[in-house]
Amino acid sequence: MRAEVIAIGTELTSGQSLDTNSRWISAELAGLGLTTAFHTTLGDVLDDHVAAFQTAAARAGFVITSGGLGPTQDDLVREALALAAAVPLIESAECLEAIQALFVRRSRPMPERNRVQALIPEGAEPLPNRTGTAPGIWMKLGSSTIACLPGVPSEMKIMFHEQVVPRLRALGLASGTTFIRKINLFGKGESEIEAQALDLTARGREPEVGITASEATISFRIAARGETPAEAEKAAGETARIILDRFGDLVIGEGDVDVPQSVLVALQSRNKTIATAESCTGGLMSAMLTSIPGSSRSFLGGVVSYSNEAKTAFLGVPRDLIAQHGAVSPEVAAAMAQGAREHFGVDIAVSTTGIAGPDGGSETKPVGLVYLGLADASGVKTRKLELGPDSPRDVIQRRAAKQALNWARLIVSGEPG
Amino acid sequence: MRAEVIAIGTELTSGQSLDTNSRWISAELAGLGLTTAFHTTLGDVLDDHVAAFQTAAARAGFVITSGGLGPTQDDLVREALALAAAVPLIESAECLEAIQALFVRRSRPMPERNRVQALIPEGAEPLPNRTGTAPGIWMKLGSSTIACLPGVPSEMKIMFHEQVVPRLRALGLASGTTFIRKINLFGKGESEIEAQALDLTARGREPEVGITASEATISFRIAARGETPAEAEKAAGETARIILDRFGDLVIGEGDVDVPQSVLVALQSRNKTIATAESCTGGLMSAMLTSIPGSSRSFLGGVVSYSNEAKTAFLGVPRDLIAQHGAVSPEVAAAMAQGAREHFGVDIAVSTTGIAGPDGGSETKPVGLVYLGLADASGVKTRKLELGPDSPRDVIQRRAAKQALNWARLIVSGEPG
Repeated sequence: MRAEVIAIGTELTSGQSLDTNSRWISAELAGLGLTTAFHTTLGDVLDDHVAAFQTAAARAGFVITSGGLGPTQDDLVREALALAAAVPLIESAECLEAIQALFVRRSRPMPERNRVQALIPEGAEPLPNRTGTAPGIWMKLGSSTIACLPGVPSEMKIMFHEQVVPRLRALGLASGTTFIRKINLFGKGESEIEAQALDLTARGREPEVGITASEATISFRIAARGETPAEAEKAAGETARIILDRFGDLVIGEGDVDVPQSVLVALQSRNKTIATAESCTGGLMSAMLTSIPGSSRSFLGGVVSYSNEAKTAFLGVPRDLIAQHGAVSPEVAAAMAQGAREHFGVDIAVSTTGIAGPDGGSETKPVGLVYLGLADASGVKTRKLELGPDSPRDVIQRRAAKQALNWARLIVSGEPG
Repeated sequence: MRAEVIAIGTELTSGQSLDTNSRWISAELAGLGLTTAFHTTLGDVLDDHVAAFQTAAARAGFVITSGGLGPTQDDLVREALALAAAVPLIESAECLEAIQALFVRRSRPMPERNRVQALIPEGAEPLPNRTGTAPGIWMKLGSSTIACLPGVPSEMKIMFHEQVVPRLRALGLASGTTFIRKINLFGKGESEIEAQALDLTARGREPEVGITASEATISFRIAARGETPAEAEKAAGETARIILDRFGDLVIGEGDVDVPQSVLVALQSRNKTIATAESCTGGLMSAMLTSIPGSSRSFLGGVVSYSNEAKTAFLGVPRDLIAQHGAVSPEVAAAMAQGAREHFGVDIAVSTTGIAGPDGGSETKPVGLVYLGLADASGVKTRKLELGPDSPRDVIQRRAAKQALNWARLIVSGEPG
């Protein structure tokens, strides 16, 4: 059986707003074993609604709409559905009570125009909406089943899970369940990682494994189907095990965990502290770390030494060293890291100095050349990155910051926890 | 006349990828005076293509598709179009030459499978693609006109402007031209600004003015239509004048200019320098400033003093002051700004200290309480922000950073340039 997802609103067809509901609904339906064959987007025109509902009901066994259930004259789903099914609209006492109760909870009088939201086609079942005024609608249309949800994403998603999924299961239209696990890696390119995972990403493999890349973080997305949630979770776990074993310390975490959080986790489990000294990354490393709640337990601070004077004044980088090697050099990266470690009194300090571009590059020091420094109890090390010369400034800055933090993660993780 | 926009690909109907082409195309068509009535998204199924093309041609005078023109078996637009029009596919010598030439330019042999991309329905016109291998197709389908473009956004957009627009104009389907200006404001809430602009945002006003908000930056989008580009630009300019006059120093710039760039512009035109001292914003202010090319001319550096010790060691904030008033206090904000101004030797320094949450708040100092400090030649001032208590950490951090930088902009702009 195939499904059709319909999004409603002139703001969508006109290009003013981007429809993200249809993608979300389709992905959820896929998780329930339902294939979406069509998305349709309609403006606020009654005849178009009626025709589109009839077309959808003829070609899809399940139709789901979002939008068009509000209280204004632009909201035409109720009326169109009644016309498409050739039944009258009736006022649902249950819906009216729910809408009135919502206004009571919000301590506001119910405007008379909201009463229209209690109308549903005769024979339809209202779908309760506990976070908004628009009830949904569930009904048969020809031989198809149609579910109508409001367009506000937060309301739509709650109603999908609470109202639509149980009804699909009860009708036997949805089968099984899907468990998702996302494992994040950092430190190698997407194609290199993909080449080591061809057995996992092969078409038709169960569980299905996809690879995505975002700012040099590579994620494996495991989608495991099963008759029960426990069965699906177990299947996902088996594939996850293979990935964790195969990719070892490239793995930085699961779900939303990216490099900055992985460093903090490594530091906190060992009671270690960190500080940063940034030139070309301009504060990105510290902003990434401090974006995470609780970072103050491990992160003591940083210096953004954009000028040479600041490198000397705040980090004690000798003026001569800068004059001799240039600000973008392994020597200065090392001195910055050492200075930060001493001045902040931390266990580990990381530094960046480089050319973020688009200007400032030269033959010997092109845009994208970045030196990292890392100082810990064992001394100071440096690394050279070549991230340009064609990459945009923000990409060079973000890559350099993540590489430096990831280096700190690897060093800290190598020590006993 | 109405238009229909069709997006093609199972990755779209399955919910794996988000279709952004249809929105872009619809907005462009609106600029040409064409109303899009429907979006349709199809998976890679031949029968669905044929039926959808026929339905679209019956209900829309202009149909435009993206995707499905690649060289693989999943790419079905060519074949479906021939079936829908009941004509054979023929190989276009012009297309084949263009594809072969592309591979020559890229110094790679042309795989035999790419030859299929030179096929077009008899009677159709190929649309040259100068940045990819997939030519587009332009043809009549019933009484409708259909344009088929590749799905890669960069290729699609170039071909839309270079191939589709001139043909729409030649057929008299597109009328006039639209000139867009975007004016950005910062410092007041969206509803407050909207209340002062009801005459501009009124439905049906020409030029049309919309308001959008992104991270507390409020933007007016002026879309002016005219018979000629000059006429449209003039109309946009008249509305822009009203906005610039009415909102005065709330205006931070146009286009992509946001608060950080506006501060740098103000500083650079007056040859002034800036430094930052950050606690709760954790490096965001400096990262925002240094994300902009050329920022090193005005921004000398910053200190992220996340620990109290760092506030004392790097900014000279007296230990006693912190003990007496707490780290989150106007006194400490002032001392941080003064310390940064002195130590970096800059004209102006801004500081932040506050509680970004979600933990660490108290009755007297709740999450979202932030003090800003600003030191310049005239002395030091502080401001209190209340950005919580329910806002997420990243919102509090970003708002505080933008407020502090905007304050610096206003102070610097108030001085003679």
